[in-house]
Amino acid sequence: MHSPDELRELAEGYLTELALTPELHGQAESVRYAVGGGGKRVRPVICLATAEAAGTEAEHALPAAAAIELVHSFSLVHDDLPALDDDRIRRGRPSTWAKYGEATAILAGDALLAEAFRLALSYSTPVVARELAQATLGMIGGQYLDITETAPDEVTLHRLKTGCLFAACVGLALGVGEVPEREQSPWRAFGDELGLLFQIVDDILDGDGYVLSHGADGARALADEAAERAHERLHAIDADTSVLSEIVSGLATRTA
Amino acid sequence: MHSPDELRELAEGYLTELALTPELHGQAESVRYAVGGGGKRVRPVICLATAEAAGTEAEHALPAAAAIELVHSFSLVHDDLPALDDDRIRRGRPSTWAKYGEATAILAGDALLAEAFRLALSYSTPVVARELAQATLGMIGGQYLDITETAPDEVTLHRLKTGCLFAACVGLALGVGEVPEREQSPWRAFGDELGLLFQIVDDILDGDGYVLSHGADGARALADEAAERAHERLHAIDADTSVLSEIVSGLATRTA
Repeated sequence: MHSPDELRELAEGYLTELALTPELHGQAESVRYAVGGGGKRVRPVICLATAEAAGTEAEHALPAAAAIELVHSFSLVHDDLPALDDDRIRRGRPSTWAKYGEATAILAGDALLAEAFRLALSYSTPVVARELAQATLGMIGGQYLDITETAPDEVTLHRLKTGCLFAACVGLALGVGEVPEREQSPWRAFGDELGLLFQIVDDILDGDGYVLSHGADGARALADEAAERAHERLHAIDADTSVLSEIVSGLATRTA
Repeated sequence: MHSPDELRELAEGYLTELALTPELHGQAESVRYAVGGGGKRVRPVICLATAEAAGTEAEHALPAAAAIELVHSFSLVHDDLPALDDDRIRRGRPSTWAKYGEATAILAGDALLAEAFRLALSYSTPVVARELAQATLGMIGGQYLDITETAPDEVTLHRLKTGCLFAACVGLALGVGEVPEREQSPWRAFGDELGLLFQIVDDILDGDGYVLSHGADGARALADEAAERAHERLHAIDADTSVLSEIVSGLATRTA
């Protein structure tokens, strides 16, 4: 079993070396730019750790882990566009549209999504890519609810906008590891807790969202409860989930 | 075997009834709008006719045919955006961004692409969706070459921008019909001719592209040659390709 830091390095190395489709021609530069830039790779690390806990080699799960990160990158590239969040800065450098222009950024997002499916489709089973498609659609629905302010409630919004892709980190790993469906529910129950935990801590760090609706102490309490539920879910799984447990503690106490 | 018009009705009916992912919430309206609007459904018809010629029921190929149409719609929705072609009108009515705003149109394109993969992933084999991913990436690369005017030549540009998705109409049908790889090459040779034929006739109807580079008569001659090659490719296939032949003749002589 690898530590979270080792898994992060594995994912980073794979993403850096990733061979993009040659037919993308010059479009590939902005795609690489969007994937680079020092993301924390939280989602691929969860995917790889889940795969290892479920008895699969991390290396075998790398295309799935990278596919999730590409979907995450795709969403950031399109969310940053002037018509959506109008963000010129992402992770301390120009966002993709600020660097390459809007047209190229729109196409870069499209290419990231298509490349993500190409990676998820490198497995002999379609279940990995199916899971990715469902998560992507949920995420897009969540983004729509967010920009149009039509979400029925905060929980639904975050479950879609953030939760779907976190749950997919676990779901894709189960697909890669060919974990039988009848054994999947405790794993999935764990995956369902991750997005909320991540979102609340994000809001605590940014001083918005859950901090505005629940106050600083209220948000902290919600985060601690989410982390505790995630740990409980891990205890219910009949496997060595120590690395996943370490990741949950890291998510709950992160400061960046 | 169905006639091209019957196949068009089949495709239209399937697209009209298509159940979108519920998690899209309100985003679904713009997705439906983009798919509607009276497209000719050329690509799905080719996919369905290929499937029937290869011995598969057209109904079984409907999700694949619809997936291709959704990828086509995705590309139109994003191409029409102000940052790209800035087209306010599409098929005689407001383009998706002109109707719903840029933000929703960007998300609608994203959702169309993800729904396309969901449909292509409804088959038990991943080869259908793999083919779709490759074609989509080629198309995006072609669009990049177009907007940046960096294409090495006209043939490369159109092979990517238009040809990839037409070739995929045949390729996806072969995947759906589980045609063994060793028997695929004559079919694929046919598919490779379709995009060029479609593009030249498009330019003749619009008075641009090949008409500007080769003159009206020159473009007409190129179109006739492309149609002749497509017919020749069909003759080399050991199957009843009469409906496909009818489709080729229709593409060559279309007036809209």
